[in-house]
Amino acid sequence: MTAALAFTVTDRDGAARCGRLHTAHGAVATPAFMPVATYGAVRGVAPDELAAAGAGILLANTYHLHERPGEQVVAEHGGLHGFTGWRGPWLTDSGGFQVTSLAEKVRVDEDGVTFASPVDGRRRALSPERVVAVQQALGSDIAMVLDECIRPEPGEPGAEMRVRAATERTLRWAERSLRAHTRADQWLFGIVQGGSSEPLRRASARATGELGFRGFAHGGLGLGESAERRDALVALAHAELPPEAPRYLMGLGRPSDLVRAIALGVDLFDCVLPTRHARHGVLFTTQGLLRLKNAAYARDLEPPDPDCDCPTCARFSRAYLRHLLRAGEALGARLASLHNLRFYLRLMERAREAIAARRLAALRDSVVALEESERER
Amino acid sequence: MTAALAFTVTDRDGAARCGRLHTAHGAVATPAFMPVATYGAVRGVAPDELAAAGAGILLANTYHLHERPGEQVVAEHGGLHGFTGWRGPWLTDSGGFQVTSLAEKVRVDEDGVTFASPVDGRRRALSPERVVAVQQALGSDIAMVLDECIRPEPGEPGAEMRVRAATERTLRWAERSLRAHTRADQWLFGIVQGGSSEPLRRASARATGELGFRGFAHGGLGLGESAERRDALVALAHAELPPEAPRYLMGLGRPSDLVRAIALGVDLFDCVLPTRHARHGVLFTTQGLLRLKNAAYARDLEPPDPDCDCPTCARFSRAYLRHLLRAGEALGARLASLHNLRFYLRLMERAREAIAARRLAALRDSVVALEESERER
Repeated sequence: MTAALAFTVTDRDGAARCGRLHTAHGAVATPAFMPVATYGAVRGVAPDELAAAGAGILLANTYHLHERPGEQVVAEHGGLHGFTGWRGPWLTDSGGFQVTSLAEKVRVDEDGVTFASPVDGRRRALSPERVVAVQQALGSDIAMVLDECIRPEPGEPGAEMRVRAATERTLRWAERSLRAHTRADQWLFGIVQGGSSEPLRRASARATGELGFRGFAHGGLGLGESAERRDALVALAHAELPPEAPRYLMGLGRPSDLVRAIALGVDLFDCVLPTRHARHGVLFTTQGLLRLKNAAYARDLEPPDPDCDCPTCARFSRAYLRHLLRAGEALGARLASLHNLRFYLRLMERAREAIAARRLAALRDSVVALEESERER
Repeated sequence: MTAALAFTVTDRDGAARCGRLHTAHGAVATPAFMPVATYGAVRGVAPDELAAAGAGILLANTYHLHERPGEQVVAEHGGLHGFTGWRGPWLTDSGGFQVTSLAEKVRVDEDGVTFASPVDGRRRALSPERVVAVQQALGSDIAMVLDECIRPEPGEPGAEMRVRAATERTLRWAERSLRAHTRADQWLFGIVQGGSSEPLRRASARATGELGFRGFAHGGLGLGESAERRDALVALAHAELPPEAPRYLMGLGRPSDLVRAIALGVDLFDCVLPTRHARHGVLFTTQGLLRLKNAAYARDLEPPDPDCDCPTCARFSRAYLRHLLRAGEALGARLASLHNLRFYLRLMERAREAIAARRLAALRDSVVALEESERER
């Protein structure tokens, strides 16, 4: 990795920090939220709109792009940047989570993962080395190692032993990934596993840190554990990881999940919640969730969120957006997604401002309190 | 109707003409193609993008908006303009074609149409007066009368008698529509029917013209008749209609259909073909249809149409667009729709330029020849 791929902390507020994550395609202001572009596109929203909404980095899925259109096609376009038209930084998720938790007929052994392709049903194999090679071909700015993410049922017999075995295998795979990685213009992040066990998480973080990665992710969280439990697991891993390396909490979550993690020193996030909620007519606002399908909004001329500065709120009413979503008009999901993404990206802006002003705890408490008051309603 | 609602012919080339159709929300340069926004939105494409692509007027469907969200909701937004964010002119289609040809359990009698709602299955009734009232509430700039459009099977016994009865009823409904229409800031167009019978079309055009409408549509065409037959039916109706009134060919069609009709003096068009083809990965280009699903385009780095000036062609490759469409990513249909709409709108620009230069016949012949060469391929 070249020296140009650096992470510099610019501000601190307790454990929270603001930083600049430098990549071959520009620097990202952190804490940052990465809109999810699984197949290289974000739910009807175009690259210029994402940039205008404040996105600094996008996430694509290695496994899905490997299946379709194949990394060679992407490479021939000059990588994800040329293929998708998003010229800023890209992170590629290894696909380990999708494969080991979502695919059919999955078999995991020391070599890697084999499974039935959801596209054509044929047998596919992914190894740690192959996953690195695919990401090198995709040309992402941040690549992730293949990890084994398991999620035992509560009280499942032998659960802790299975989680321990998966955590240790993830570590051996991480070592192989590092050896396979040759692109000097691409970050490679290690992934901390360990389920919800404190000792396993601590050991995983320490050992992954010692392998020589310069960036790290928390894997296997947001799978049902309480927020307090997750805070503890994140904090203890941070205590073991090289303190100046960037930290990424994978796949989470609600606004409160993000600000809690920011307070603990997490720098990067991704989540499908803003776009998924958008498709279902659930909008994030500074006053809490707006469930557009409620009949109360059928004649509501107000913008979705009067406090929002996104193009959707500047131009369209709740009633119109509700109408489009009910009629199944594609413009509805697009406009709602753009709004929800702007909400998340603006939350990151607010978090960065709050850290600079040493007021992050107050921001966190107000976001957490809003969500709690909603649950009580 | 106020004097401000005027149609002025600015150029002629044989029977073809360029004009300005003045409405309460601005003037439209004709010949014009109206993108179809059935529910008040065009397939994932936003109003500002439609304007940038050269759209001057959009079409919405009265019946669908009456069902959902209801015309009151639209009226409370200040009409379609406030509801949808498209502040330029709107034409509303009466819904007669959709109801009489597509709905279930349709019964047509002298009062109007009753049918089962596709939304909730309940019985609905539409009369000529009701259709005018709904369009007045929607606030469109051009309203259409309710017509009875029937389409007998070839060789069906008594077909001519049925077409004659529907044509005569359409005329009686037209008279009732005119009496019911009170908005001085809204055009109301009569509709010529008569199936593929020359005498019926001629009689329908003459009688509709005599009722005092100031704009007219050809209804019930594009339903399987040959292009030559349709040309004859359009031309003979024009001979009967007030020559300075705007003429609209409803629901058609391919580029060749449009330029043929323009050569006969048609001023307005609408068709779902550009957006429907886009969803299926079929793109209009100056070299003919590009069928993106063909494997040949899987690694094609070229823009969809190198001769096109749309944002899709400026930024994205055939391979990327193909990938999005195959992956079911909403951005694919949006980008392809925008391209195809720009193709149609540019065809109208080319037609207006050709009329001004007295070269429309050459444009028509080249567009027709391109489509014929494709059919032979």
